[in-house]
This record gives sequence, structure tokens and C-alpha cells, in this order.
Amino acid sequence: MNYLKKVVLVFFCINISLLHAQKHPNIMLTKDNIAGVREGCTKYPLLQKSFEQMKADADKALQGKIYIPVPQDGGGGPSHEQHKKNYQNILACGVAYQITGEAKYAAYVKDMLLGYAAQYEKWPLKHPKSKISNQTGRIFWQILNDCVWQVNVIQGYDLVYDAIAPGDRKTIENKLFVPVVRFITQSSAETFNRIHNHGTWAVAAVGLTGYVLNKPDYVEIALKGSDKSGKSGYLAQLDQLFSPDGYYTEGPYYQRYALLPFVIFAKAINQYQPALSIYNYRNNILRKAINTSLQSSYTNGAFFPINDAIKNKTVESGELVYGVDLAYAEMGGGEDLLDVAQRQGRVVVSDAGLKVAKDIAEGKTKPFNYKSLFISDGPAGNEGGLGVLRSGTNQDQQCLVFKAASQGMGHGHFDRLNILYYDNGSEVFSDYGAARFINIESKNGGEYLPENRTWAKQTVAHNTITVDKTSAFKANADVAQQYHPEVLYFRGEGDIQVISAKEENAWKGVSLTRTSALVRVPELSKALLVDVFKAESAVQHQYDLPFWYNGYITDASFKINPDTKGLKPAGEKYGYQHLWLNSTDSVPGAAGYITVMNNLRFYTTHFCGSSALNVQLATIGANDPNMNLFGGKAFILSQPSVSDQTFISLTESHGKVDPVVETTSGAASSVSSLKLLSSGKQQTSFSFDVKGKRYRIDIHYNDKSNFIQLTK
Amino acid sequence: MNYLKKVVLVFFCINISLLHAQKHPNIMLTKDNIAGVREGCTKYPLLQKSFEQMKADADKALQGKIYIPVPQDGGGGPSHEQHKKNYQNILACGVAYQITGEAKYAAYVKDMLLGYAAQYEKWPLKHPKSKISNQTGRIFWQILNDCVWQVNVIQGYDLVYDAIAPGDRKTIENKLFVPVVRFITQSSAETFNRIHNHGTWAVAAVGLTGYVLNKPDYVEIALKGSDKSGKSGYLAQLDQLFSPDGYYTEGPYYQRYALLPFVIFAKAINQYQPALSIYNYRNNILRKAINTSLQSSYTNGAFFPINDAIKNKTVESGELVYGVDLAYAEMGGGEDLLDVAQRQGRVVVSDAGLKVAKDIAEGKTKPFNYKSLFISDGPAGNEGGLGVLRSGTNQDQQCLVFKAASQGMGHGHFDRLNILYYDNGSEVFSDYGAARFINIESKNGGEYLPENRTWAKQTVAHNTITVDKTSAFKANADVAQQYHPEVLYFRGEGDIQVISAKEENAWKGVSLTRTSALVRVPELSKALLVDVFKAESAVQHQYDLPFWYNGYITDASFKINPDTKGLKPAGEKYGYQHLWLNSTDSVPGAAGYITVMNNLRFYTTHFCGSSALNVQLATIGANDPNMNLFGGKAFILSQPSVSDQTFISLTESHGKVDPVVETTSGAASSVSSLKLLSSGKQQTSFSFDVKGKRYRIDIHYNDKSNFIQLTK
Repeated sequence: MNYLKKVVLVFFCINISLLHAQKHPNIMLTKDNIAGVREGCTKYPLLQKSFEQMKADADKALQGKIYIPVPQDGGGGPSHEQHKKNYQNILACGVAYQITGEAKYAAYVKDMLLGYAAQYEKWPLKHPKSKISNQTGRIFWQILNDCVWQVNVIQGYDLVYDAIAPGDRKTIENKLFVPVVRFITQSSAETFNRIHNHGTWAVAAVGLTGYVLNKPDYVEIALKGSDKSGKSGYLAQLDQLFSPDGYYTEGPYYQRYALLPFVIFAKAINQYQPALSIYNYRNNILRKAINTSLQSSYTNGAFFPINDAIKNKTVESGELVYGVDLAYAEMGGGEDLLDVAQRQGRVVVSDAGLKVAKDIAEGKTKPFNYKSLFISDGPAGNEGGLGVLRSGTNQDQQCLVFKAASQGMGHGHFDRLNILYYDNGSEVFSDYGAARFINIESKNGGEYLPENRTWAKQTVAHNTITVDKTSAFKANADVAQQYHPEVLYFRGEGDIQVISAKEENAWKGVSLTRTSALVRVPELSKALLVDVFKAESAVQHQYDLPFWYNGYITDASFKINPDTKGLKPAGEKYGYQHLWLNSTDSVPGAAGYITVMNNLRFYTTHFCGSSALNVQLATIGANDPNMNLFGGKAFILSQPSVSDQTFISLTESHGKVDPVVETTSGAASSVSSLKLLSSGKQQTSFSFDVKGKRYRIDIHYNDKSNFIQLTK
Repeated sequence: MNYLKKVVLVFFCINISLLHAQKHPNIMLTKDNIAGVREGCTKYPLLQKSFEQMKADADKALQGKIYIPVPQDGGGGPSHEQHKKNYQNILACGVAYQITGEAKYAAYVKDMLLGYAAQYEKWPLKHPKSKISNQTGRIFWQILNDCVWQVNVIQGYDLVYDAIAPGDRKTIENKLFVPVVRFITQSSAETFNRIHNHGTWAVAAVGLTGYVLNKPDYVEIALKGSDKSGKSGYLAQLDQLFSPDGYYTEGPYYQRYALLPFVIFAKAINQYQPALSIYNYRNNILRKAINTSLQSSYTNGAFFPINDAIKNKTVESGELVYGVDLAYAEMGGGEDLLDVAQRQGRVVVSDAGLKVAKDIAEGKTKPFNYKSLFISDGPAGNEGGLGVLRSGTNQDQQCLVFKAASQGMGHGHFDRLNILYYDNGSEVFSDYGAARFINIESKNGGEYLPENRTWAKQTVAHNTITVDKTSAFKANADVAQQYHPEVLYFRGEGDIQVISAKEENAWKGVSLTRTSALVRVPELSKALLVDVFKAESAVQHQYDLPFWYNGYITDASFKINPDTKGLKPAGEKYGYQHLWLNSTDSVPGAAGYITVMNNLRFYTTHFCGSSALNVQLATIGANDPNMNLFGGKAFILSQPSVSDQTFISLTESHGKVDPVVETTSGAASSVSSLKLLSSGKQQTSFSFDVKGKRYRIDIHYNDKSNFIQLTK
């Protein structure tokens, strides 16, 4: 942020109450647009449906009794869920009040808020279930949840503000909101000033409260941190939490989560201080962040489950409903965003939601424009990044994700150069995601499970090389945070889309270079996934390269001999202790294939190595005393002792199983004769046949003008 | 069949050529209705879409070269798939010819048939891949496939008949169809005269050919068997293969498959010999069979996978498109069949399909009327049967299936008194189905795998008691075929829906009585699954009662201690050899619960026993050298040594996980204090609490007027 910007900012912050007469509501739904939104709720199907759902929630709330329990339980427990329900009800009733004009909804919100105001200050400053003392909440076990509560509740208050008598407003503000802000900014000052998604929820809670209560000081500290220096606070978060491409270093799951307070607060800033041009801040960083979030998903809507991620999260998630609506309505997003909004099946009942629903009703929707792209990581965009290669239509897309990003802070996994591969609407080579039963109290209070650390974060849980059965950086997050892979090359267009990156710090004295590509050849209707993984060292190591597959193995070039009479864990630590080792088979000629049937299609992975290798099959589940792990299966290319090793694999997507007419076609692969020709520091060369046609691929690691070459 | 019927039948058979001038086409699509169907193809969306799909297939066929390989491969192999493709193309082109009137489609069929005619007689009478010599095909490895081929091809021929020159017709008929019929009726006389679904395909192939080629003799033997005695053939099959309720003893998967030749042939009979009133034969047995087939499915469309069954088969299956269209258009089926047709998303391009598509377009569809019902088994309806209990709407239905049917011939499983349980669109307690990768040649040629016998058919693979770790009837199908359970009671309505049945022959000296019910109590929104399984013997036995669950265990009343360091098979034979034993835990007080999270909902099974019991967890996968088995998990209630044992369980469906908003509610069960009060020959009594309210259930095994009683 340059000096001039700072001056402008300070000026606006100090003067907000002078510049803008206070109007309510004035965040997602604004006084000036109420009439239009009301009309839209009867006219445009998506808005109508969204409002009806919200009104049904509000009506259900009104039928029940207001219940404000003394804070007591951890995540997922009764008091936790009740307070969550309460803020949802406050927001639903606030919206219902604005659209219907019926006083009963406003009365409910008022009564609820007075109820909280009567109790809040009696509750201890430390929640009884708090686990980390500097992250304790007051209403919930974590300060994070208190901030989320406030972001929602203050919007509800704004929506019914005009319907509450001044005396009651005074009670609510002084006995509830001011103490809540005090708790966030003082008792939880550390969180409030953190450059972290918890910090974003905190500053959004305080900043929104500042606007609604007309307290410029709240807004100023929200924007610039407790000391108003700008070293922390919302703007610093916008500067530091996103890469210039709008990537959030913790990964797509947390990116989605982090987005909500960013965009709601931005919308409020834009209402109250339009001159700040917050949407244009840092070259439209918010729009980029929303776009990057959408591009970090597969066509089935699921986010790439990199780092700690709950896997059934999709772009239908509420946070992205806000993001998509605002990006489209106010940030100049394209009409392909309407495709996402349709998939979401709802809009925010708001000015933005009106525009989205109207334009959908008018048939402006275009298919979402999934792209192949490289998304840089790090505040300056120079800490590696995420490569995304796509091939095919939105109906049947191949997608390769290559993680050459940095560690990703506390939620990062030790998954340097990991790849994920999707096809046909499904995961082909997948990531375990996080080990967590979110919000299920009987499972460690709904929190991350111990196996998140012992399994999910470990290198072997990913589709990347493990050296000597240890994890990258010996699973030390602080060390890992200091390094990021070096991206050698990226091309996201043409018949050979490719990304290549190098990691030299994960294991001492081992240099890893991975090059993954989607390659189209005229003989095949789908692209080939080409993967070249080179490990180099001065001394000998064991190199294991797992492919975490879905489905069932239907064929292999060699006889797989699973242990039939007993299973043992594959190792003792770094995640191997959680694997049952099913088989270890040597592969004649260091080359072979495995065919997997997955979601009615076949995937044949042809592989070869620069020296002898064996294939191990493994299943997740060992050393799991509390049955915390999900199932999962891998085939692992393994070289037990060598200094340099190159693993090459070609995965062909082929054939079709039609269970309705009971036909199978193309169950055999069209690829054969994969052969490594040479592999060295400068170059890797290999050949293979497709339907009898010989192809050769050369990778020139140091030649960006001719990085990868396919010859026939 | 009474004497008069026989006389009438013989009369009509002999006189068909005299009574009806030969018209073409005259099976699914008839000359008189062509104009209407043509118009309908442009007017009614479902017919239009179905025709467009068929025409696209026909056009694709025309773009390729006709290829008639010498028979060579087993199921799923290239020549197998090509011949399958050929008959599909013949039928598609036949339909395309009738609707568009374009000669090119007819020419394709003619060329293809002449091609076959030029080769057919050169092929050996025994297919090189034939495994069972009296079931060999000539075009395919199995005679069954040859018959399916002919059923399709003869329809295609009928459709283009008028466009083929008489000389070519003669060649096709004499060099292809007559030899095909000769092969079916003579070389494969055993299959042709079998009372079995293979026999139905055979008689349909021959009968349809008889009508189209105007060969009354073919029709007569098709209807009454080779010797024309009526002891075999189509009518004998209608008499013997279905129970009076239209149940086909092999189970829903084969019922669906068997239906197609039954209904197509019936349609032809109705066209050529309407006076036979074939649709009304045996009290409308065909309509009943179609209806029973649909009622043998869950709301997700999947057939109950009883006996050998491929699990992803649904009512969308092509056979049932024919069945539903004909049942609706010609057999007086109700408008709720249109709901099924909509789900199928297509109709047969035919007279019947026209009516279905038209009525759907006119908005006549009613939701499919899923019923609770008892479906009798056996030709006389006195060999047990299938109990189906349902509760809730089509959108969120609980469904309990209770197998008290007979063995089910060669495809039967040793699953006496097995239950399946569905809820929320998903399997809760499921059946493994068949061990088979259908049509995947690398998997035992696409045929049943050895594990179908060693695992899938065995008792322990089902949700029913296993005695002394052996299977029912020691897995001897011939012995098992002689016995069926005795149904004690069935009630499919009211707040207590229940079925009870007894099996006394499966294990010597052991009497098994199971009573399963869906019980509604006012405190809960969903019914409780109540299951009372009583085993009685004069001597001590081990009784194991597995529940094959889907999802993940999230809670239990006792500490589960899984083996963390190694797994061993649970036994040596009768399927136990395929289970990895994960844990064995004794349960204090012989009572406890296990909670499973499955598809965003929770299922808590409270259980107790009349004597001490332990709970074992097991996973499918041991002794599987060729990796032929799918995954699966069970908790097993086990009593190692006792003469009489009663297992009682109550499974509550509760709560909700919403991954989009990340909320969880109702994760804890509302049921508690399950207690067995007494269990004897006459009566079992137990009590339990729901939200603090005490309930008591008494089952009076010998009192049909008061079989089950719920008191508060």
C-alpha cells in the first residue's frame, strides 16, 4: 500500500459518520433497493426460491421458543448448535422482515438480541470447552465461532434496526455488541491482529459492527489493526493472505471459508466508503480470489482437497453464494458465473442476488469457463503455486492438479509435488483430505483427529514420492514453511499441457523433479496423463511413489499376490503405520501396467522405472484404535535402494461400462511398450506405442523454449 | 391350464396363417400405428428423445463398416461385443427405417443379415469359449446370448421386411433364421425345453421368428415345447416360473432380465392371436410380474439385490422400459407407471411408447405407488415369499426387505431370513449381491467369479444368523431348494408393519424365527427398525448375526478395540475365510449400541441378547488372491456357545449432517434402555425408552389375532 492510499484511507475512516447519513439496512440488502428485491422475490425463480427458503426458516424460528443456553459444549454439541441456530434465525428473520414488512420477524430478532444482552456479560471470558487458551471464545469454544456469530448477527440487527425502539437498541448495543467487540479486540487481541482467516472473521465482525453502530473507531481498527498502523487488519490481510492471483495459501477448502468475511466486509465498505474502491484494491484482488476459488474445483463442484480439507465441500457452499453473487453483481464478473449460481441453486436475498436471479431468468447464463491455469502462491506470487490442467468439455473433463505451492501454514500437508487427477466427474487419483468428522462430537468433539497429524498430513498419504519411508521435512511444519518448490515450466494450452517443478529441500540431499502433462494424440479421444518423477541423490534411498486410486483393479501386466492369510502394517511411522500392506510384487523389466475400473470407466497406468521396481498394494486402516480413518487404496511404485530413480507413468482413460444395457467396451488399453530411453540432469526421454504408432517424449529441463517435445 | 384352454390354443396355433394376413411390422411397432408414432416422434418429448437416440445409433452404424467376426471370444471380448453391437444396430436401423422411411437404414439391415446368412452355417455348432457343453451358443459362448440376438434381430427384420427383395428374404430366412431356429430347438433342445429364463429367451426367439416368417410350427413349439405337449414352452413357463403374485424365484435381478422375452413375445402373441388373451393369462400374470418387479426396488431405482445380482441395476434397465410401456399401454397399468417411465427417461419407439410419451406430455403422471406388501414365492404361491415394508414418502422412504422366499434355484443365496434395510435413498444394511465383474473379460471372462460361491452366496455375507460358522444347508443348493421358510405373520399397514418367519431346516436341530418390523412411535419422526431373531436348539451352538453396514462408525456404547498391528481371517470356510476380523469385544450386560454415519444421517442400532454376547467387526478382503472382492464392513452380534439365543435390535434413523453449512444435529439416539424381558416358544417381550417414555413390545408367535403388541 503506498503512502497516498494510506492518507486517503485514514481520511475516509475518520469521517465516515460525516460523509454518509446512517441508513439501515446497508450491507447485503440496502434500503434503496428493497423495493426491487421485494418485486424480484415474486418474479425471478432463483430469488423467489431463496427467499421462500429463508422465510420458511424464519417462520420455523417464530414457532419455537427463544432459547439462549449458557455456553457449555464443544463443536457439534447442543449449546454450540443452538447458538449457531440462533444467528441463522436472526439473519433469516431480518431478511423476512425487510421483504414482507411484517413486524413479527423484527420482534423476534429484538427479543433474541435482548435475551443475549441480558446474559452475555455474565458468561466467563473463557469458554469451558476451550482447548487453546489464546483462541477461546465466549459464546463458543473458539473465538472464530464468536466472530462468525457476530458477522451474522450484526447483519440481522442492521436489517431490523429501524423497527427496534431506541431504548432497546441502546441496551442491545451497550450490553451485547460493544462487549462482543471488546471481547474480540481485547481479550482476543492476538486473533484480531493475526494475518490469518480467523483474523479476517474478527476484523469483519468488528468492522461491520462499526458501520452499523456508527462507530468509526471500530472500522478503523478493523481496517488497520488495533494499533491502526496498517500492519494488521483487513487491508494487510488482503495484501498478505492472497497471492497476486488470489490464491489463499492454506488451500481451496480454507480459501472458500476465508472468502465470506472478506466479501461481506468489502460489500459494507463499498456501501459506506465507496471512494475507497475496495473492490479494485490490489488489482481487484477480491474478484481474483473468488475466481481462483471457483477454478480450484472440479466439474463435480468439489474443491481440490489440498491440505486440510473436508471432501464433500463444493462450490454450492454458502460462502461462495455470497462470493459469486457479489462478483457478478458488483465486481464485473462474467456471465459464466451465472452457471455457478444455477448450480448453487440459490442466491443471497440481496441487491446482488436480485441481479443474479434476474439475469439467469433472462437467459444470460453461459457455461462456467473452467481454465487451465497456474495459480501463484505467496503474497508476492513467487512461492510456487498450483498448476491446473484441464482437457475436455464441462460434461467430461480431465483435470490434473499439481501442487507446487508452499506449505500452507498450519493446515498444510507434507505433499510436495503431489498430483490429483480427475476424469468423468470422479476422482481418479485422489487426496485423502483431512482426518476429521466435522461437528460430530463423539469424534474428538468434531475437531481434527489425531490421525490428521499421524496420517492425513504425511507424505505417503499423497500421490507423490516418499523418501526412505519418512515424510517431507520429517513432518516439521515450521521447517517446511520456509521452503517452496521451484516451478520450472507451465503451459496450459495446446495438445501438450504441462507443469514441471523441483523440490530440493524436503529431504536432505535429495533433488526431486516432477513433470506432469495432459497429452493429446490423434489415436485417442481422451488425453493421456503423463507423469515423470525424477529423484536424484548422491547416496542410496528408498523411493516410494503411491497412486491413491478409486475403484477396483481389474487387470495388471504382472501377477499380483496379495497376502491372503494375514495383514501387517507397512511401517511404523510417517503414516506407514496406518497402511495395511496387501502385496509386494516385483515387476519384470521394471515396467508394467495396472488397470482400474472406476465409475464405469477404465484407467490403465503404464509405468516404468530407470531401475528395478516393485509394486506394493496398500489399504488404509492399520493402527487406528478409534476407527477414525476412512478407507482408501493405493498402488505404490517402489525402488528400495538406489541413488537416482526416474518413475514414468502414462495413465490412459478408456472404455465404458454400461450397467443398464450390460455392455463393456474398450476394457483394454491402447497404449503399450512404454520404455525409458534416458534420464539425466538435463533431459528425460521415453517412448511408447499407441495403437501401434510409436511416440517419443523428450523433456528438456533447462530449455524453456523447448521444454517438452512429442515426436511420432 | 384347463382342457378347454388347450383346445382353443391348439386351434389358434394351427390356424395363424389363415386368420391373419401377414403384415410387417407387427410386433412392438405395428403397421397400423406407424403414422401415429411418426407424428409422436416430433410431438412428445420422451418419444422424440428416444427416437433421436435410436436414430443417432442407427446413423452411427451406417457410418461404420459392417463387421461380422467369426465367433471367438467369451463374454465382454471383442467378437462377443461386436455381435451384440450388430443386433443393436439392426434393431436401431429397423426402427429408423420405419420412422424416417429412408431406404438406407433398411439396406444396412439387409446387408448385415445377408452377411450373417453367408457365414452362419459355416460356424461350428460349439462356440470355442463354451464352458458348459449343453449350454453352448454358436454366435456367442452361451446359447442364451444367441437367443437374445435372435429376439432382437427378428424384430429388426420384421421392421424392414417390406424393403427387402423376396430373393434376399429367402436367403436370409433359409440361410440364417431357419438354421438359427434349428440350432436353438435341436442342438440346444435342452435349453429350449427348460422351465427357466434361458428357456424363455429361447421360446421367444423361436416364437417371434415363427410369427414373422409365418411358420406356425415354430409358434406352436414355442408355446408348448418341442413335443407340443404343453409340459414346457412359453405357457408352461408362465405357469411355473412366477408365483401367483408374479414373483420370479431367482429374485428381482433375474426377474427383470427374464421379463423382456416374456413381454415381447406376449406382445407378438397379442398381435397375431389376440383371441388368446395372453395378457389375461393366469389372472394377468404378466402385469403382475411387471408390477412385482417394480415393487422389488427401492426409491433410488435399484432392485433389491437378493441372490445373484449386479447391484447397479435399476428400474431404468431396458427390459423394464419394455415392461412399463406395455403394462401401461396394453395391460391396464395405472398412471403411476408414468412416473417410472419418466425416471427411465425413454420409451420404446413403438405403439406402447407413443401412448406413454403422450400421456406424460399431457401431465397424467402420478407418483409411483410404492407399497408395503408380501410377495409370495413358488408356482402355487405357498413357498414363502418376500416381505417388503415401507414407511415415509417417495422422497425419504424407509424400506425393510425380508427374505422368507425359497432358495431361488441356481442363482439363490444361502440367506434364509435375511433382511435388507434402506433409508434416505441409501442402503443402510445391505446385501453384497453377486461376485462378478459383468462383461469384464480380464475378470474371469466377465462371468461369475469363484468368490461368488465361496463368499457371496454364503450365509455370513448376509444380514442373518449363521450357526456354528457354517452356511445354511452347508451351502448345498440342491438340499436348500427343497425347503422354504414358513411365514408366520405379515402386516403391511399401520404404525406397526411386521413380518415374521420361521426356518427349521437350514441347520439340523436349530429352529430360527425372525420378526422384523417398522414401528412408528409419536416421539420420533421416522419409524424404528425392530428386529427380533430367536434361535432355539437342544444343544449349544455359536450364533453370529452380522449387520452389513455402509458408512462409518461414529459412536458405540462400549470401547471397540480393533486389532491395530495385524489382521487375520475370521475363519476358514463358509465365507468366514474372506473376512478380516478387526475386533472382538464383549459387551457389558449383553446390551449396547453402535452408531453409524451414512449418507449424512445417523443410524444407531441398540441391541441386546438373552445371554452374554460379543460384537465383532469384520471387513471383506481376506483370501482373495485375485482381488475379486468388493469392500464391505459388518458388525456381528455373536454368542459363542448357547442352545437358545434371542438377539433383539432397534435401529433408529436420526439426525442430519449438512456438509454445505457444516452443521450436525441429532447425532445422539433418542432410544435407550433396551431390555429383553422374556423370550420363549410362545412369546418374546422387551422394553425400551424413547425420549424417556417407556415402551414394551410383545410378540405372540402363535396368535395371529394379536401377533405383535406395542404398549406405552
